[in-house]
Parts: sequence; structure tokens; C-alpha cells
Amino acid sequence: MSEPSKRPIAVAILGPGTVGSQVVRQLAEHAADLAARVGAPLELVGVYVRDADVARDGIDSTLLTSDGPGLVARADVVIELMGGIEPARSLILAALASGASVVTANKALLAAHGPELFEAADAAGTDLYFEAAVAGAIPIVRPVRESLAGDQVERILGIVNGTTNYVLDEMTQRGLDYDVAVKQAQELGYAEADPTADVEGFDAAAKAAILASLAFHQRVALEDVYREGISAITAADVIAARESGQVIKLLAIAERADGAVAVRVHPALVPVGHPLAGVHGAYNAIFVEAAAAGELMFYGQGAGGLPTASAVLGDVVSVARHRASGGRGPRESNYADNAVLPIDAISTRYAVRMRVPDKPGVLSRVADVFAAHGVSIETVRQTADRGTAGLVISTHRAPERDLAATVEDLKSASLDLEVVTVLRIEGE
Amino acid sequence: MSEPSKRPIAVAILGPGTVGSQVVRQLAEHAADLAARVGAPLELVGVYVRDADVARDGIDSTLLTSDGPGLVARADVVIELMGGIEPARSLILAALASGASVVTANKALLAAHGPELFEAADAAGTDLYFEAAVAGAIPIVRPVRESLAGDQVERILGIVNGTTNYVLDEMTQRGLDYDVAVKQAQELGYAEADPTADVEGFDAAAKAAILASLAFHQRVALEDVYREGISAITAADVIAARESGQVIKLLAIAERADGAVAVRVHPALVPVGHPLAGVHGAYNAIFVEAAAAGELMFYGQGAGGLPTASAVLGDVVSVARHRASGGRGPRESNYADNAVLPIDAISTRYAVRMRVPDKPGVLSRVADVFAAHGVSIETVRQTADRGTAGLVISTHRAPERDLAATVEDLKSASLDLEVVTVLRIEGE
Repeated sequence: MSEPSKRPIAVAILGPGTVGSQVVRQLAEHAADLAARVGAPLELVGVYVRDADVARDGIDSTLLTSDGPGLVARADVVIELMGGIEPARSLILAALASGASVVTANKALLAAHGPELFEAADAAGTDLYFEAAVAGAIPIVRPVRESLAGDQVERILGIVNGTTNYVLDEMTQRGLDYDVAVKQAQELGYAEADPTADVEGFDAAAKAAILASLAFHQRVALEDVYREGISAITAADVIAARESGQVIKLLAIAERADGAVAVRVHPALVPVGHPLAGVHGAYNAIFVEAAAAGELMFYGQGAGGLPTASAVLGDVVSVARHRASGGRGPRESNYADNAVLPIDAISTRYAVRMRVPDKPGVLSRVADVFAAHGVSIETVRQTADRGTAGLVISTHRAPERDLAATVEDLKSASLDLEVVTVLRIEGE
Repeated sequence: MSEPSKRPIAVAILGPGTVGSQVVRQLAEHAADLAARVGAPLELVGVYVRDADVARDGIDSTLLTSDGPGLVARADVVIELMGGIEPARSLILAALASGASVVTANKALLAAHGPELFEAADAAGTDLYFEAAVAGAIPIVRPVRESLAGDQVERILGIVNGTTNYVLDEMTQRGLDYDVAVKQAQELGYAEADPTADVEGFDAAAKAAILASLAFHQRVALEDVYREGISAITAADVIAARESGQVIKLLAIAERADGAVAVRVHPALVPVGHPLAGVHGAYNAIFVEAAAAGELMFYGQGAGGLPTASAVLGDVVSVARHRASGGRGPRESNYADNAVLPIDAISTRYAVRMRVPDKPGVLSRVADVFAAHGVSIETVRQTADRGTAGLVISTHRAPERDLAATVEDLKSASLDLEVVTVLRIEGE
């Protein structure tokens, strides 16, 4: 193995947290391999921290600096792992303006300010890579951006949040109540003390916006993403799903629909035979339907210091190789301009679960309500449920607004029934 | 969407078969999208065929030529879809020598002559891309080459042949005999009239050599790949596997082992809970274990004209983008030089299925044979099997040569038993 003779590539890390400290360690441990793959050695020139006087495990204290702009100015490659909007945004813009390549894992920043950052990278003729911002270690950005560049992505169904997948999987596998499963996830470190960003779907929505932008070659903003979390899902919902041969997953969905696109995050019923139904624990998976490639799935760990560091380092090798040997990665080609549909304009299938009075004629009156709104019923399943009757109606594909009007009418007092849950059915 | 102003990139296709005709169609149908992604329009300048007088569906007859070298000389990007060694090898070498970029789906050629071709690409400073050569539409080459470039691949377990997965899956799901399942695969077009290349593992072995070379950054030749097909697998093997909570899959395995690497293709017992066990029909999937990323899986269609065309076009966009905007893809960095172990030097787990006389003391004598060779038994399962007793012994991890010696001794006449099947257990 011949030593690359080129001048070292100066690498700066912003934010020495869980991921950053792993990146520092890997840069040192695999220096020879990385140099061979890049064609030049990588030299860590500094680590930005808010307080440079606090020692960091495993990081040479002379590398620590609280002068972010100064560090960025002397780097060829800047790795941003701080999270949040500022100062991440300003430091990335400064790095790009000085011609440095940037690798970031910051989904919130990309979802909120992606276009500004990609334009700055284009203006400077440099790379902005972000594999670690969606689904951690799973290579999904590169396959969608590059491998599928000659194809058309029709739909993406993603389990992109490990916390919620863990919670729903525990509810499914072990019959836990939602609160118990969340508490357990917190004890195991899968969920934050305040789990809102995960369980209410904010994290998944940011990833959905990034994935949709990539897949459809256009800007999809965070505000364009409809979002519903899993905190209303009950053990009874999980049991009802199982009885219908389904599991409940929090999905990030991006799809083309009649010349427009739609992007949404919500709990969904997925058939047990679908590849996504077999994704357990805190794992992530992204199911892609493309016009030519057909069905693809990418599976792996969506979080964690070491797995995320793998994705970051893959990007670092790519952008550093471009610096050593010339070239750039693909530009964000946001040339398309499809309308982004609001949630009430999408169509999908639905399962409406009700408690109804155990009297003759109820089913017929319920069916009339669906028919009145043009929502076609596919299956009806009745269950005994403590005195009242349980009724699960699964519909054919229908517009969300018609389904919403149906549910509104079902709730009207004259029918004397309770709509317990409405869930969308996906992956069929 | 602004029209790229750059001069067109001249594209030549060698071999207008199932994949080639789809590539021709996609180039025409998606011309505007492709131009936007590349930064310059792609212009199909010719299609090489052995007999240019035979009309080809969907291909303008004025594009057909039987002058391969002449076509290659006027192309910027050459797409080789002929298969086989010659004239594919000579035409690719001519293309690279003239500075053209090459995209190929030819696994046999890469497995046999990869180093020569990659050296020619390096000498010319141009790209040789081959995503479609392994697992059709599934992005696996790019993720291993680029996304995992900052990580270390420890093991790859791949279902890389759709024909054999279809046959084994039908045997598993519907209890078919091997011959019946093969016949059905032939009727459905999943298997060739002569299925040898698939069922005896030759196709999978070529892909294993390519994957191992990529993953371990070193040359792994086809001759280095141990190969065993599925033609000896019986319905009884499938049933015995199910009773042990396993399914049988033909796996391509590449793994690091004590500073060396080992590459092999053979039927294997996989636990039903493993993600590979859920890969049905003619689908492919590649399970990757990396030091930092952990477990990843890539799933999709491994063959077919349209899916394979998707992978080819993704490569075409990448290499054409490099021509339009500068740069090159990663070089094949074959800098490592680990020994490649022969099959008798590998270690894994085994299930030995026997028919034994239904007499006291047999199990003890069988156990003695395993112990004599230092092969540790993990589980023993006895079944009734038409008068004689069935015995399945699953071992802990053991060297292949010790297991082979054990089986040799088990077959010795004095024990009066029949060794029915020996299968390796993987994915645990």
C-alpha cells in the first residue's frame, strides 16, 4: 500500500458530541485506510466547542477551540455535528464561502434552510454532503441522489425514527401500553426525557422533507409536510391491527400524485407481509418505489454515535477525494416545480374503528354514510367489545377530504356510535 | 427548468438485448430529466449489434451498426450490455483507451478480468462503473464503494441470485420438490432452459468475487470463491430446517477472518427472524455487517430488463456528469493484500442431519465422534423418520476441516448411520 504523496486535507469538526467524538476516533484509527481511499491524508486541524476549556474524552485538548469562524477559515473539509440552526448555519455558510467542502448530519437545518445552503455550495463550486441527516448509517441519500438519478422515484415509505419504531414494536410484540413503552424507551436511552420531537413526528417530518426534496428534484419545505405522531395510539389499536393482519408503523411518506407531490408523516397500518412490517426495535428502513427499479428497501441503524459516524465518514471520503483529485458531487438539482398537496387532497386507504350499539340495522346505516360521501368499503370486520359491538371498516382508496366528511357524519348524534380510531392503510 | 447549454454527450450502447432496449427507451423518454441531472444532453450515437441488418424493436435502424470499434471511437460514454468475455472485453478496453467512460453490467467479465479493466480506466483517467453487475436494480456497488468508504466491512451475506431464491422460496412456502420448483421457475421465465449457471451457484460466485473485491479493497478472483449449488437440496431438508426455525437460502458470503478473508457461495440455514429469511420470490438482498455502521440490508429486484436499466442509467448519469462538470468516480483501490482462505480453513456453524438406528447408545457414540474432533455440539434434535430415528446435530462455530473429518468418521461403517445432509448455519 503506497502512501499518498499529496498534501494533507485539513479537516475541522464542529461539535464534539456523541457522533463527533466517534468521528475523531475513526479519523485517527483508520488514518491509513482513509488516506488510501481519498488519495491524500486527512489531518484534523481543530474541533469547535462552545467552551474550549472543558476537556473532552479522547480529543487532544490543543485541538479544541471556541473560535468557530477562525477554525472554519483554515479547513478544507468542515464536518458540522452541532445540530440546531445557529451557529451551525452561519459556520456552514462561512465554510462554503471560503471554498471548503461541508459534511453535515443536521436534518433540522437542512429542512429549514436547505436551499440557502445548497445555493451557497453551488456558488462556491464546492460540496455539501448530508448522508447522516436521514436515517443515520443507512445509505439512502446517495442511492436516491445518484443510483436512482436515471429513474423516477414514485413513492417513498420510510421508518425514519428509531424511537417511535421501538415504542410501536414493543406495543406490538409485547402488548405494552403506549406510556409503558415510552418509559421503557427512555430507560434504555432510545427516547429523550422529553420525547416530543420523536413521538409527535417532528424528527420524521424533517427527514421526510429532505427525502422528498431529493426524490422529486424540487424544494419541499418542512411546512409542506403533514404531521401526526403516535401518542394517540393505544394497545387496543395494535390488537385491532393484528386481527386485520397489519402492524402499526410511523411512516414518512413522499409520493407523486397526479402531477403533484404529497409528503406526510403519520401512523399507518402496514400489512404483515410488507418488508417494512419486519423492521423491529429501533431500526430504520426506507422502502422506495421507482418507475424502473421497482421496489427497493434500505435497512439499518438510524441513530447512534458510531453508526452515524460511518455515514459522516463516507461523505468525508467523497468530498475529500474530490478535493484531492478534482470534481464535485451532484448538485442539488431542484428543477422540478410540482405542486405540494395539502393533506385533505391526498388519497389513500383507511381503517375506521368504531364502537356501535349492538342493534339490528346499524351496519346498514353506517354503510349509508360511507356511500353518501362516495367512499367505497372494502372489508367490514365485527368484533365483540364489552357489551357494545366493535366494527372496523376498511375502505378502498379515497380522497382524505371525503373520508374526513364521512367520519364527521359518523360522529353525528343520531347514529349513536363512537369513532375510536381512524388510521391510514399504506404499503398495499 | 433551464436547458443545459453544454455540448451533447455521445452515448454508445453495445448489445441491444432485454436491458439494452430498455436503456434506449429510457434515454429517449427521460431525455430532459437526464440532461438536467447531468448538466448536458445525452445523445445516443449508435447501438452495436452483431448483425446490423436485423431490425430491433424500438430502436431507430440507422443507429444500428456492426462496427463495434468504430462506434466506440466516437462515443464519450460506452454502455456494455453484451455479456460474455469477447468481444465485450476488447471493446471496453478500446473505449477506455480512447478516453471514453464505460458503464457495464457484465459480471462474468468483471469477475474474470476486473483488474485489467480497472487498470485501463485508471491509466486513461476515466470512469468504469458497474452497479448493474451485482444484484440488478439494488444500489449496492455505490454504497459499498462510497457510503462505507470510511468504515470497515466485516461480512457480507447476499441473496444475489433470483432464480435460486425463487426455487428455494417455492420449496419452503409450498412444499415443492426441487425438480418441480425448477420446472415452475423455467415456465415463469425465472430460470433458463439450462439452469446450471444459476442453480450451481456460478452466477452468485461471480457476484461474490466482485462484492468481496469492493468490500475488502483487494483483488478476489473467481477461483478464490468456494462454490456449492442448491441442486442437492430436498423437500426433506426444507422441512428439517423449518422444524429448527430456519429457512434455506443460497448465500454469497464474504467475510474477514483473522486477518484473512473468505469468500464462498453455498446453501445455508438462516434463522427465520433474520432479515434475509424474509426475502421471497425472485428478490435479492444483501446484508452487510460493518464495524461502525453495524447491520445494513439492501433489498430489491436482482434482474429484469427495466430494473437493471435503472442501475445502468444511474451509472450513466454519474459518469456523464463527470464528463460535463469534471472529476471522476472513486478508483478501485485494491491496496489490501489479505490472504484468501480456502474453504477448509473457514469456521462457521453446521447442522448435520442423519438417519440413525433406533437403538440405545447411538446418540452417545455420535457425540463421541464430534468430541473426538473438537467440534462442540449446541443442540440435538431427534425426530421419528420411518422406522429409523432422525437426528439433527447443530454445532457451535467450528473449523470446516474439523467438521469434514467428523462427518467422515460418522460415515464409517461401524456406526451404521446415514449422514443425509450437512448444511452451514449463517446469520446468527
